[in-house]
Amino acid sequence: MSKIKALIRKRPKSDPSKAISVNSDNQNTNNTSIDAASKGHTVNTPIEQTRWNGWGNININKKVSAHGAKLIKSHIGKTKKLSSVSLQQVLKTVPKSRLPVAMTELDTVSVDNEVRLRHARGQSFPDWIAMQGGDFEVFPDGVAFPESTADVEALLKLASEHDLIVIPFGGGTSVAGHINPQKGSRPILTIAMSKMDQLIDLDSESQIATFGAGTQGPAVEAQLDAHGYRLGHYPQSWELSTLGGWIAARSSGQQSLGYGRIEQMFAGGTLVTPQGVLNIADFPASAAGPDLREMMMGTEGRAGIFTTVKMRVQPQPEEELFKVAFLPNWAAGKEVLRQAVQKNIQLSMLRLSNAVETDAHLHLGTTPSQFMAISTYLKARGLSSKKVMLTYGVSGDKAQNKLALTQFNKLLKQHGSVTGKITDIMGSVWAHGRFKFPYLRGTLWEKGIMVDTFETATNWNHIDEQMQQMQEAVKNALADEDENVMAFTHISHVYKQGASLYTTYFFRAAKDHASTLSRWQKIKHAASSSLANGTATISHQHGIGRDHAPYLAAEKGKLGLQVTSDMLKSLDPEQRMNPGVLIED
Amino acid sequence: MSKIKALIRKRPKSDPSKAISVNSDNQNTNNTSIDAASKGHTVNTPIEQTRWNGWGNININKKVSAHGAKLIKSHIGKTKKLSSVSLQQVLKTVPKSRLPVAMTELDTVSVDNEVRLRHARGQSFPDWIAMQGGDFEVFPDGVAFPESTADVEALLKLASEHDLIVIPFGGGTSVAGHINPQKGSRPILTIAMSKMDQLIDLDSESQIATFGAGTQGPAVEAQLDAHGYRLGHYPQSWELSTLGGWIAARSSGQQSLGYGRIEQMFAGGTLVTPQGVLNIADFPASAAGPDLREMMMGTEGRAGIFTTVKMRVQPQPEEELFKVAFLPNWAAGKEVLRQAVQKNIQLSMLRLSNAVETDAHLHLGTTPSQFMAISTYLKARGLSSKKVMLTYGVSGDKAQNKLALTQFNKLLKQHGSVTGKITDIMGSVWAHGRFKFPYLRGTLWEKGIMVDTFETATNWNHIDEQMQQMQEAVKNALADEDENVMAFTHISHVYKQGASLYTTYFFRAAKDHASTLSRWQKIKHAASSSLANGTATISHQHGIGRDHAPYLAAEKGKLGLQVTSDMLKSLDPEQRMNPGVLIED
Repeated sequence: MSKIKALIRKRPKSDPSKAISVNSDNQNTNNTSIDAASKGHTVNTPIEQTRWNGWGNININKKVSAHGAKLIKSHIGKTKKLSSVSLQQVLKTVPKSRLPVAMTELDTVSVDNEVRLRHARGQSFPDWIAMQGGDFEVFPDGVAFPESTADVEALLKLASEHDLIVIPFGGGTSVAGHINPQKGSRPILTIAMSKMDQLIDLDSESQIATFGAGTQGPAVEAQLDAHGYRLGHYPQSWELSTLGGWIAARSSGQQSLGYGRIEQMFAGGTLVTPQGVLNIADFPASAAGPDLREMMMGTEGRAGIFTTVKMRVQPQPEEELFKVAFLPNWAAGKEVLRQAVQKNIQLSMLRLSNAVETDAHLHLGTTPSQFMAISTYLKARGLSSKKVMLTYGVSGDKAQNKLALTQFNKLLKQHGSVTGKITDIMGSVWAHGRFKFPYLRGTLWEKGIMVDTFETATNWNHIDEQMQQMQEAVKNALADEDENVMAFTHISHVYKQGASLYTTYFFRAAKDHASTLSRWQKIKHAASSSLANGTATISHQHGIGRDHAPYLAAEKGKLGLQVTSDMLKSLDPEQRMNPGVLIED
Repeated sequence: MSKIKALIRKRPKSDPSKAISVNSDNQNTNNTSIDAASKGHTVNTPIEQTRWNGWGNININKKVSAHGAKLIKSHIGKTKKLSSVSLQQVLKTVPKSRLPVAMTELDTVSVDNEVRLRHARGQSFPDWIAMQGGDFEVFPDGVAFPESTADVEALLKLASEHDLIVIPFGGGTSVAGHINPQKGSRPILTIAMSKMDQLIDLDSESQIATFGAGTQGPAVEAQLDAHGYRLGHYPQSWELSTLGGWIAARSSGQQSLGYGRIEQMFAGGTLVTPQGVLNIADFPASAAGPDLREMMMGTEGRAGIFTTVKMRVQPQPEEELFKVAFLPNWAAGKEVLRQAVQKNIQLSMLRLSNAVETDAHLHLGTTPSQFMAISTYLKARGLSSKKVMLTYGVSGDKAQNKLALTQFNKLLKQHGSVTGKITDIMGSVWAHGRFKFPYLRGTLWEKGIMVDTFETATNWNHIDEQMQQMQEAVKNALADEDENVMAFTHISHVYKQGASLYTTYFFRAAKDHASTLSRWQKIKHAASSSLANGTATISHQHGIGRDHAPYLAAEKGKLGLQVTSDMLKSLDPEQRMNPGVLIED
């Protein structure tokens, strides 16, 4: 029997002395301490309940409507599914571990083939090709499951003694190649943080929650909700991604407008580095030199591993609403977004799909009769094929929400919006299904439709030009093969200064996995090159990993890369932490 | 005749091709370009209009009421003024410049004695002792006045060729020893940024204003106001301090609650380092690794010199109000602050004086009859000597302000507030005089009353204990001399997580300058030690300089200091930029 279940199911020992302490003179909660008995339950999703070769929980699927698939094929042509290998086939390709015997005997370390396989790949397109095609290339030589900061310290010490490469692993949801082991002579130890998934302390006066960094999104919120609190960080990967991963790769969630990016939520914590433990103090603010928090956020495992993290949380909102409106065209929608944020209207989210995405969204998420009803409704109100869908939300105090909605509705009307009962329902539907979108990739994969995304952020005065460049780049990327690529874009994070742009594209699988990967590589290069112009960042929310590293110099400059690299070397002089990620070697 | 006037008055050449470009499809302004003729006027305060040996404009004084001075003396005892030297006396002590002759002949460099003297000291207490006592110790060997990024590049290149120490100089307002030349064999070149004081570009769509980094507060706002915009950064030093100084030392202004700290305003820009120009891209947000902005903010001149900076600005507020309320005691006031910020009430500022500061403030800023009127009013409404003064403000959209004031007034009432016409007037008086407080130091100095401040930030759950510790530390610091120190504290920056604490203290001048400095050193050490406990930062808004550097390790840790130091060395391997500042050598 595979060692995986035993390993994953082994929970932190329930030690009453480690019971969560809740400092609560806040009127929102009357708890003063939490019964130790309520601790120790499984809160992260056990890895054996996730797909070994795709996204998410094995029990969850998301269907694609027939007219949705037809729409995509009308752009890219007839498709054919790529073959898939079985888990058993891939397990046979896992080589013998190169870890020193002394390490394989540790309680915290597994060299089980399935464990190694399940920690070898993330969720990038090349990862999918590898997982579905069965060519994993490289596996970690072992996977460690530390339960404490001291465990991680011990592991890094052993890694130094045995000259190992170390790869930190959170939820394994990277779409940019953050956790992939690379060929090389040094054995590779992946350190999976899945057992550090507990709320350790809640200071309700200062609204600071201390967590194990391996806690996944749902486990974060469930443990906070038990005390009436919320973090409010909802990236698309929320179901599986972790606090440590969000911090290490500078994540941003769907309600960043209201709750902030992870940078605003991360107050401090513990980073275990090859040079020792870096304790990052959790001050509300400080003028004491460069900010260690900001120096370490985004290091993507190259400086060390976050073990415990202090997060700024807040009481559950009194009210939370999500709504949809349609605007006549992109220009009107963009103007509504820009003015709303610059006028400081207190919304929790703003998202604007361009016309092609709006059309695709209406197709993909509806039955034919629903689609007809919505289309008829919108057409009757004067909206053409240029119409754009705007999703917005409020989350917080009722009176503040009311003012925000009043001010925002005025802005919407000034720009020709269409809203009504049907759009309100669409808002609720969006909210309900918002973490299911990643499941679409598997559904489309089965149909031979390849899908990937890329994203950026730029200032308002570059938004239109940048969106145009991004879409043109990917649409034309397979011109040499006479292949069409379908692309559409949305804005999902807005700032007074500018916004994010998120482009989704579809293309046909080629005759085999390798040639399909080659198509993706052409598109990826075209997409990334369209960003490497000094005014748009290579990533607003996905991070750099290995896939974006070649394009980082365009925005940081040679000197910017050098100072970043020197900073990392200060903590990891032997370059054993995730080499090649973030900055190319 | 001194070279200083000619140097300072020489303005950037008015070159029509360099006219400010205003990109304005924002409805707030119809300008599309600014007439070159409107440029080139003096906007910074000419240095010869400032005090060479104290704070501020030579034409401005702030009086202290007799009963205010009496109150202080009732705490510390009878006082006697220290002697002061004349400018002419100090000029005689300026040694010959050690700059290489080739550099002294440059248009941009002055070796004039008065120019060197006026750039030798800041506004820390030791600086005042030096300036008033006439013992400057060290002067820069020359002062450069670059007019462009290229000028700064050229100067740093020369500094490298001639092995000079370089000290960046903004407004000269440091209270922590940031700009003081130190004894040593290498000649010292101070680079004063006063000529780079122009608004260069305004992108009103993205609300980004590009400035020369040497622009002082009033010049920033005057140039923005001409286009209907505002930065909104108002530190107490605003009259003289500069954008570059705020960024380099992580400043925070009076309305940080509404407008953010300088960290939220600084979008990117140009830092000239000994290794070359570091261009920091001005993205709205990015997940592309550690944030170069945050790595370079707070470097206090040790990494390089900011030359042009891109700032996030916004339209002038529709309405701005400042008000005062009194609460029965500190606990009530603190609770109002914490709840207001945690409930997301959209105020622009919150400031709470403790009971001793409230009493002192009521004495110092009033005539005896005003004092009597206010005291009687408050006493009649049941407030005792434990009462605390709370100053608050709104700045922005009228409807948002209205809701904020409604919500805040409710909170105030719940905690037993006293407000009325008289407190509204006090709010206006505070707003009107808020940049005049630094002038008090000179007025008190003349009376033999020494005054200094220190400040921190900590989480809400540590606020009371920390305030207690800070005040006790300074009050007892001169116990060995049987001297009393008067101390009081306010909160002036609030965050969901915690707040700043700002303590002002008064003590008697000793028999001479040296023994007075020795008194200050004891108090400073006691104050700083009370912060070096891991839960409070050594500075929330003043920065580190030389005075706080010995206490930095307590919050950054040895490893935190090392990674910061290594990052700086990456850009300044020869350690010629402001050595000893931020991190002790």
